[in-house]
Amino acid sequence: MKNYTIGIDFGTLSGRALLVDASDGREVATAVHDYADGVIDRHLPGGRTLLPPNWALQNPADYLEVLRVTIPELLRASGVDPSLIKGVGIDFTACTFMPARRDGTPLCMLPRWADQPHAWPKLWKHHASQPQADQVNAVARERGEPWLPLYGGKISSEWSVPKMLQVLQEAPEVYAAAERFMEAGDWVVWQLTGREVRSACFAGYKCILTDAGFPGADYFAALDPRFADVVDTRLTRDFRQLGELAGPLSERAAALTGLLPGTAVAVANVDAHVTVPAVKVTGSRRMVAIMGTSTCHMLIGDRLEAVEGMCGVVHGGIVPGVYGYEAGQSCVGDGLGWFVEHAVPESYHRAARAAGLGIHEHLERESAKQRPGEHGLVALDWLNGNRSTLVDTDLSGMLLGVTLATRAPDIYRALIEATAFGTRTIIEAFERKGVPVDEYVAAGGLPQKNALLRQIYADVLGKPVRLAGSAQAPALGSAIYAAVAAGLYPDIHAAAERMGHIRPEAILPIPANQAIYDRLYDDYRRLYDYFGRGENDAMKRLKAMRSHAA
Amino acid sequence: MKNYTIGIDFGTLSGRALLVDASDGREVATAVHDYADGVIDRHLPGGRTLLPPNWALQNPADYLEVLRVTIPELLRASGVDPSLIKGVGIDFTACTFMPARRDGTPLCMLPRWADQPHAWPKLWKHHASQPQADQVNAVARERGEPWLPLYGGKISSEWSVPKMLQVLQEAPEVYAAAERFMEAGDWVVWQLTGREVRSACFAGYKCILTDAGFPGADYFAALDPRFADVVDTRLTRDFRQLGELAGPLSERAAALTGLLPGTAVAVANVDAHVTVPAVKVTGSRRMVAIMGTSTCHMLIGDRLEAVEGMCGVVHGGIVPGVYGYEAGQSCVGDGLGWFVEHAVPESYHRAARAAGLGIHEHLERESAKQRPGEHGLVALDWLNGNRSTLVDTDLSGMLLGVTLATRAPDIYRALIEATAFGTRTIIEAFERKGVPVDEYVAAGGLPQKNALLRQIYADVLGKPVRLAGSAQAPALGSAIYAAVAAGLYPDIHAAAERMGHIRPEAILPIPANQAIYDRLYDDYRRLYDYFGRGENDAMKRLKAMRSHAA
Repeated sequence: MKNYTIGIDFGTLSGRALLVDASDGREVATAVHDYADGVIDRHLPGGRTLLPPNWALQNPADYLEVLRVTIPELLRASGVDPSLIKGVGIDFTACTFMPARRDGTPLCMLPRWADQPHAWPKLWKHHASQPQADQVNAVARERGEPWLPLYGGKISSEWSVPKMLQVLQEAPEVYAAAERFMEAGDWVVWQLTGREVRSACFAGYKCILTDAGFPGADYFAALDPRFADVVDTRLTRDFRQLGELAGPLSERAAALTGLLPGTAVAVANVDAHVTVPAVKVTGSRRMVAIMGTSTCHMLIGDRLEAVEGMCGVVHGGIVPGVYGYEAGQSCVGDGLGWFVEHAVPESYHRAARAAGLGIHEHLERESAKQRPGEHGLVALDWLNGNRSTLVDTDLSGMLLGVTLATRAPDIYRALIEATAFGTRTIIEAFERKGVPVDEYVAAGGLPQKNALLRQIYADVLGKPVRLAGSAQAPALGSAIYAAVAAGLYPDIHAAAERMGHIRPEAILPIPANQAIYDRLYDDYRRLYDYFGRGENDAMKRLKAMRSHAA
Repeated sequence: MKNYTIGIDFGTLSGRALLVDASDGREVATAVHDYADGVIDRHLPGGRTLLPPNWALQNPADYLEVLRVTIPELLRASGVDPSLIKGVGIDFTACTFMPARRDGTPLCMLPRWADQPHAWPKLWKHHASQPQADQVNAVARERGEPWLPLYGGKISSEWSVPKMLQVLQEAPEVYAAAERFMEAGDWVVWQLTGREVRSACFAGYKCILTDAGFPGADYFAALDPRFADVVDTRLTRDFRQLGELAGPLSERAAALTGLLPGTAVAVANVDAHVTVPAVKVTGSRRMVAIMGTSTCHMLIGDRLEAVEGMCGVVHGGIVPGVYGYEAGQSCVGDGLGWFVEHAVPESYHRAARAAGLGIHEHLERESAKQRPGEHGLVALDWLNGNRSTLVDTDLSGMLLGVTLATRAPDIYRALIEATAFGTRTIIEAFERKGVPVDEYVAAGGLPQKNALLRQIYADVLGKPVRLAGSAQAPALGSAIYAAVAAGLYPDIHAAAERMGHIRPEAILPIPANQAIYDRLYDDYRRLYDYFGRGENDAMKRLKAMRSHAA
């Protein structure tokens, strides 16, 4: 009899579930469910409560719907008997962080709190905690906190400590009512098992949990006296490692999903991190990039190094026993999506329809007709801030070189190039610290679909680019961890070797293109330093002016 | 019996003719004719000869068509008897410069030269003479030519000496065949009168004719030995002042137009300069800006000052007896036109149609809903280079502050603001030299149509903005000069006082907006200096890379 596992990837807009053959990772069935409320960034569901700028929330009911809809669909589509499904693993965007009661009820699901924005899960891209992040960083610098360099010298507004501190400062009554604060991924595992079991991976990257433990109560007290006991009153000190069993599937979750009670449920993982074994990477020198609306970069290193502006480095954070480095870019597919929706004239949409192509595919083809440098443009890819190297959400996008001859495919190409330049700054930051990158393994929808993008990355980075073998790499990674948690493999290395998939061919840099991109990159770097490192803080002034006017 | 005059304004895309009552400037009839070949910037008419980047030519046959079509239309529409039409005046874009035979035949009209791009009139915005302009400037600086500061320290690639030098260097056979080089405006007067009569205004602003005469033969020889005798072999030293009679209408032109032979024809004028009396300005302190695809700024000063980057200062160049200063911005309406055509999604066009509005009007209304600073953007308005203050066609546009929340009306507003900031840099350059500006008089289509733009200019400049009383101010100005040339008035002051029109109301700055725009202007100025004055030559490198790739 065959064994199967299920992996579910909870993304920004939907949940994607995958049922795989545990012997070889073959995809047997997939199911996707879009979140009904998606990204909540204008008003709370119902429409009466408006949100300020830079807020981004989600509805936990959407997460449950993913379980309720996709798992039965996998069973139906595959015809696999639930008894053959040995494990379930999930991965989640992070840090997506929520307040809950002691019994796991999200505060926002209680009528008392439903109209209070701070009661809702704050999505990873909620950036309104920037003042709190500034305070977290200033106090840490002042006190010389030893963990700060492990997070690139800056804690992001996207992470849990600023997000919790924002609740405390802006809605102390919500903070008081929040008996638990947790990652949405851990919350989903709680719903599956009936047990509060937290993943060390989330805490290591997003909640300042290092080998030395959490920051001390005196540090939290220095942020706010009421915050001193946050770890012991609202978090935990008990974490499970990746690949461990979180617990057996509860009766209640079995009824919801159609799986058998007792099915192994793996510890939750971050969507990016879980992708690494899915592309067969369990060692150093190969950067795995999960490219979608944003990009997450995963890199394994043999030593601990304080790399500039990395998101974090956690021992065992990606693969047990070695250091897992994380970095990221906040705006990749998001920027291209913004562009086609808000800055591309109808003529291109019409031409795409006439050719039976999507607008991205059409623009990709038009852009691909150009030689590097031909559009005369350079862009900064910070339309959603800069997550790694500069760690600054107050930065914004820039386009330079526009003339009356500039056309949509020119800008489309420049935006792709800008994201590649951004990736290069990150790789150079690692390499400066002796954490080498020989190959760029691209997972996620964007590089699968866009051949021009793949080649631009190879040319800009000057490194071979390889592609994930699965279009659902995060869900596959979760299914691999489910197999480890279910005891089908002794460890993640063995499981990844059998179940992971990477495409055999490499996209190599074209030397003539590389030479031009090296020059364009020089200009990118110069603008990056000028606008990103404080010489000209125009972006911050403009954002402040915008907030003031709004 | 009443007297009438006709003014014809030859613009970039069309000729606009106006028949006015000479006693009060009242508009009796108007007629417009679009140039069949418009701006020739991709290939010569017929399509076989492709043009390199930055070329912009025109077809002189289009100018004759304007005469042949519009004047009879004025007569028909007005019912005015040709015997009552006492004068005709014309104005033209400048420098629009063409090679011709001794008898006035444009070289491009001869089959022998029709396929040679250099045989065609180079439109003002032909920028491919930049290498020649660089040489003109370098040699002038080296030799310490005394006229250089009178042109803002730089001769533009748009002007006649670089344009002629380009012909000489790139097509010496065309240069050899060109017995005459002339402004298209002077050429049209030649067609009307049968006489080669040249306007001092064109030569003063566009051909380095100062109170001291032309540069010496040794200067021209230093550019190229073959160029030493250009003035005496291909130009002239005999010029007529503004308001003088060029000659009586020829029999041939009378047959073409339906006017009577002998009707007074005024010396040709520059389109911008002729607008000044049309808005009743014949003295200092009031800047007249002709705002269309580009903007020309006209300012009268009592003294001669070397103002940074001005286009020129000519004694009697605008009004006899005083100094006429000219400055300009290369991309104003052009930039907004580029934006709506190439960067505005269909949803806005659809909404405009649904509301029965033009797309500009719709975007103006949407943008007007914002407060200053609310879009968080700042742009550099150099999509077509910088004409005044920096005098550099290799500069390009920039947009800073873009986020995923940026929408088309935000950018539309930022582009308008950028042009207003550009105007402010020009006014400040004049004021630094003690040439004051108390009021900004806006003529041309753009400020007539766009109320938001008018208010933004008042707020950014911190000065009252007034509007021309005529939507056809340049043509009215030409009609006023026609009245002077016909002897209906003793001088331009008397004619402008009776025939000119300015709207009585002033648009005043709103102090709260002014305060915000002062801060935004600080950022604009910083970026202006950084990218425009050589600290970061990214724009030039990108343009060079673009030329190299293309």
